[in-house]
Amino acid sequence: MSAKPYHHGNLRSALIEAGLAALERSDSKDISLRALARDVGVSANAAYRHFEDKDALLSALAAEGFRRFAAQQTEALAAKPDLTASRKASGLAYIDFARKNPALFRLMFGQFLQAKTDPELGLAAAAAFQGLLEASAQEAGTSSDPDLVLRTAILRWSVVHGMSHLLLDGQLDVFAGHNIDKLIEDVLALAPRLTATEPEPAGGRS
Amino acid sequence: MSAKPYHHGNLRSALIEAGLAALERSDSKDISLRALARDVGVSANAAYRHFEDKDALLSALAAEGFRRFAAQQTEALAAKPDLTASRKASGLAYIDFARKNPALFRLMFGQFLQAKTDPELGLAAAAAFQGLLEASAQEAGTSSDPDLVLRTAILRWSVVHGMSHLLLDGQLDVFAGHNIDKLIEDVLALAPRLTATEPEPAGGRS
Repeated sequence: MSAKPYHHGNLRSALIEAGLAALERSDSKDISLRALARDVGVSANAAYRHFEDKDALLSALAAEGFRRFAAQQTEALAAKPDLTASRKASGLAYIDFARKNPALFRLMFGQFLQAKTDPELGLAAAAAFQGLLEASAQEAGTSSDPDLVLRTAILRWSVVHGMSHLLLDGQLDVFAGHNIDKLIEDVLALAPRLTATEPEPAGGRS
Repeated sequence: MSAKPYHHGNLRSALIEAGLAALERSDSKDISLRALARDVGVSANAAYRHFEDKDALLSALAAEGFRRFAAQQTEALAAKPDLTASRKASGLAYIDFARKNPALFRLMFGQFLQAKTDPELGLAAAAAFQGLLEASAQEAGTSSDPDLVLRTAILRWSVVHGMSHLLLDGQLDVFAGHNIDKLIEDVLALAPRLTATEPEPAGGRS
């Protein structure tokens, strides 16, 4: 990320952009607010006016990550002809996000506990998870059982989250000879069977 | 882990035991071969005769982790009345292993790339994965399509791996009010639908 001039007032977002780039270049442990300030061409003091410390910066990076993640999910789910298509698009978008932003993905999901103390991160994470939950609720449409909707959401989340981790950690490399992109698509293509279709008790509970 | 006397010849396994305990107390980054030597009451030099460096020790810990993991899977799968029961037992054992040995779990699956250079770790990991694959192959029994067996195995692996990570990273804590153990069981209970039962082309390809 080259030093880019910024307009008065958006130093915070310039630092976040630089932070996201630095994160993928190295690792969250090696990020330095001082170095980011240099990247965007301001003094360390100016940077510290926006982020009290490195934890505050990482928290803001994770929050931005959740907003981008949620936006990609919304885009993936939009205007799909049917549930099968939107389910596939949502799963592929999840895994694609993890593969394109491995360090950010680990940061977001590893630091989630911070959501309880940082309101901005809490809101961004909650909105992203709400989106995942709603997509599952839509799928479980015929069911009025909220527990079943939740379980289906967690199961579907586990599939894409688990596959993301297996990919990031190189575990699926052992299936050399397979085209990884095709493997992901083929595995996700089995997932429609995850749709919650448990028979409801007669009469339901409306 | 208190210092335990060891018999001549098993210093290596004493160091591994001490290493596994230290791993869960702190983190793989903080493990020191020197401290482990103190734990078991030998000189650092004696410890270095068994492990060239910290990486060699971590590799041995991961290998031991894969052996224990595979043994638990074998036990879980043994003598179950039907596929539904063995599938459930296998999934619960996977997640249970991750929850009881979080640092070891992260080490094993994070360091998998090392399997290519450390033969002991490579063998242990391959044996564990082979077990997972065979369990899925057994489930997909009616199918003669090896790609479908592989896809089913990866899908099922993703479910338990993803749920393990979500649990370790505290992500499922947001569903406060739910009993986590029951939630895991209930989510896995949806997974039987993952069984590979795609209709095969007439005549198959035997």
